[in-house]
Amino acid sequence: MRNENASRAATTAALMSAHPRATADPEARAAAATDRSGYVPATPPDVVVRCESAEDVVDALRLAHARGLPVVPRGAGTGLAAGASAHEGQVVVDVSRMNRILSIDPVEMIAVVEPGVLNADVNAAAAEHGLFYAPDPASTAICSIGGNIATNAGGMWCAKYGVTRESVLGLRVVLADGRVLRTGRTTIKGVTGYDLNALFIGSEGTLGIVIEATLRLRPRPVRTETLAAYFADVESAGRAASAITAARIQPSILELMDGPTLAAVDLAEGTRHRELGAAFLLAQTDGYGAHLELDEIARAVAPFAMSVHPAADDDEAAALVKARRDAIPSLEKLGRVSIGDIAVPRNRLADAFAGLEEISARTGVRIFSIAHAADGNLHPMIVVEPQESITEGPAKIALGEMFHLAQRLGGTLTGEHGVGLLKREWVAEELGEMSVELQRAIKAALDPAGILNPGKAI
Amino acid sequence: MRNENASRAATTAALMSAHPRATADPEARAAAATDRSGYVPATPPDVVVRCESAEDVVDALRLAHARGLPVVPRGAGTGLAAGASAHEGQVVVDVSRMNRILSIDPVEMIAVVEPGVLNADVNAAAAEHGLFYAPDPASTAICSIGGNIATNAGGMWCAKYGVTRESVLGLRVVLADGRVLRTGRTTIKGVTGYDLNALFIGSEGTLGIVIEATLRLRPRPVRTETLAAYFADVESAGRAASAITAARIQPSILELMDGPTLAAVDLAEGTRHRELGAAFLLAQTDGYGAHLELDEIARAVAPFAMSVHPAADDDEAAALVKARRDAIPSLEKLGRVSIGDIAVPRNRLADAFAGLEEISARTGVRIFSIAHAADGNLHPMIVVEPQESITEGPAKIALGEMFHLAQRLGGTLTGEHGVGLLKREWVAEELGEMSVELQRAIKAALDPAGILNPGKAI
Repeated sequence: MRNENASRAATTAALMSAHPRATADPEARAAAATDRSGYVPATPPDVVVRCESAEDVVDALRLAHARGLPVVPRGAGTGLAAGASAHEGQVVVDVSRMNRILSIDPVEMIAVVEPGVLNADVNAAAAEHGLFYAPDPASTAICSIGGNIATNAGGMWCAKYGVTRESVLGLRVVLADGRVLRTGRTTIKGVTGYDLNALFIGSEGTLGIVIEATLRLRPRPVRTETLAAYFADVESAGRAASAITAARIQPSILELMDGPTLAAVDLAEGTRHRELGAAFLLAQTDGYGAHLELDEIARAVAPFAMSVHPAADDDEAAALVKARRDAIPSLEKLGRVSIGDIAVPRNRLADAFAGLEEISARTGVRIFSIAHAADGNLHPMIVVEPQESITEGPAKIALGEMFHLAQRLGGTLTGEHGVGLLKREWVAEELGEMSVELQRAIKAALDPAGILNPGKAI
Repeated sequence: MRNENASRAATTAALMSAHPRATADPEARAAAATDRSGYVPATPPDVVVRCESAEDVVDALRLAHARGLPVVPRGAGTGLAAGASAHEGQVVVDVSRMNRILSIDPVEMIAVVEPGVLNADVNAAAAEHGLFYAPDPASTAICSIGGNIATNAGGMWCAKYGVTRESVLGLRVVLADGRVLRTGRTTIKGVTGYDLNALFIGSEGTLGIVIEATLRLRPRPVRTETLAAYFADVESAGRAASAITAARIQPSILELMDGPTLAAVDLAEGTRHRELGAAFLLAQTDGYGAHLELDEIARAVAPFAMSVHPAADDDEAAALVKARRDAIPSLEKLGRVSIGDIAVPRNRLADAFAGLEEISARTGVRIFSIAHAADGNLHPMIVVEPQESITEGPAKIALGEMFHLAQRLGGTLTGEHGVGLLKREWVAEELGEMSVELQRAIKAALDPAGILNPGKAI
């Protein structure tokens, strides 16, 4: 069997060897097998094509298409749902070296970028013009724009500015057969034809490979104000977050962390958040009236909080934001992490936290929880020992129960990380068989041979 | 020929007569033939099905599908691109009587509505809870949500709050064969599967008929501030609008009207705007810092303006907003109106206005211009004598030239009204043949028999 695999891999590699960027180097193949989901395929992909240009991607897809080889698109490899995981028999088309910012128009507030550019690099370049790019996953420093588009990634600032879909005006995409399609436009509005742009955003590499994106930048706020509040328990923090929504206040950031996560951050970073409470809410407002809006937030959370701490200056604010950004890396020091991504109606946050505690107690898995609270998007993180599986046994059971919890509360399986490989089995349950069937028909219309990221997303 | 048409119509009517809401009444058919685009088909549709429930729509499509009859979905009939126009051989499925607001959740800020409900009625109901529905076409008092969804309608508040796509969380849609599909969700975020919701929004009734929409409402701003500025010419007003964008200010409304439009509004409404200048810019800000932001706008426009008038109170502000809302009705008193809908990059507004003046001079057609200036979305309105055609001769030529002007400036054919029947011939030029081909493949995947609104949009 092992020999058979090896020879099959050699065949694939030979078929792709016409591509100057193709490599069958074992290290390259092993590195391209997995992402940050914690899932590790049993075998690596057969070949990796390290594209440096749009033409490289076109050529890779033409070759693969002609030979019927399955292709897994790959960017920075920071996905959390195994959407970029690749195994034996598959060709990885890696665009991480296509990482240039092609242009920034500071008047129109538009950036044109290649897919491999890191999210944080776009923001750094935008900042030079007093602008920012709103979708800011916690992984901003290491995730790339192509992957953000593939998963319709969110982040903290989505609370006010929307997800990736609201910040991508247009795309250039290589289709399965190597043809290049333009979607969207460079104007803010436009309704000529169907919204193919939105169709590609969040399609997890199953419809095409993005080679260029036109991003909408926004003016950096004239003023931001930040506070942290600590609570006796996570349900109180959830109720406080819902109270902010119910009070019709629009924070630019509203992040929640539970006690175990705070303890993990403290352990990793030497901070002392957990001493102040068993749950934490971070709120930021921006704009000309940011200070007035923050006062309203302080008023809304006070009845639920042990203490409320407005940041005295930018450094204090940055330290509070950093605590949230440190959550996932801190947990990764404790074991293998599987990150849930459910979303629920915004007034059901406390119910969701209570449900997660119940799941943890029943299944015996450790669950740490953070949430983009303004959007009702929770990341319950299952942490297992490094040698334990996250795709079988209790971790898998807990992941399924999380989905059913979200469903009971009127929510969804995935808010911003995507389905990938890890959540496929619940897709039909959420969408219905007919919707899945239609989505497969759309997939077939764009990729009749079915070579793009097979087995992922739908 | 006439007899042949009449007998063919009778046959269609007979085929649909199994539907309890079907009528072949000549008045009903004549009323369902056209919209507010100014386009009048040579013949009326054969039959109109006046649906009162989701089941009525399902039954209508099942009947039509079984017999291969082309179906034109219809709401309030206020479309501006002839998207709802219907002719001999076609069945109109009219959902205007399905006009109930099914529920409003003031905490989650969500409304569930039927497609025939008027945009203004949604806003009136939301206002009772201190909420509003952001997409506000000028026709808010007479246009229905289903049509807003079909065209991805915009309006004034889009400047800050986005278009219909950003305010529709989910849909229930009847497909061509009568099956009912749910798209989207009731949570703010969610990426399970492809974004079918966005695919249906703006698809102009070619993919399905919306029978229910879950709308996102927003908190009414705690404060709004309004100003009007008058200019010596429309290019100056365009430059002032671009200056606001360049100064990174986010107005909630930024509307521009040229001198001829002002004169038409004055004539119809007895106001005296034209005396104050040959172009008008209306700006509104909202939120806790609205007054501070309005000061910034006043500063940005001052170098270009003849005068700047902050509204002293809500009544003055409402009068200024009304002037803009009156523009299209005022022009309709002057003749038959064909409304252009081009969008250009936001810093090209002055160039667009100059180009429109040049087109008017060259073709001899009268063009009145208004614009959603913050989005670069212009509505150049061609006014011809009531007996003249808007789909042939100079009006048609001018419409084509407008598109090519937009294209030269990096813009698009239609910002928010849709392609309908009137702009079809330029679609492939904007999108490219390959994109149109893919869109037709998607259409074929959802409506294999091609019965839904044939000949429209793509």
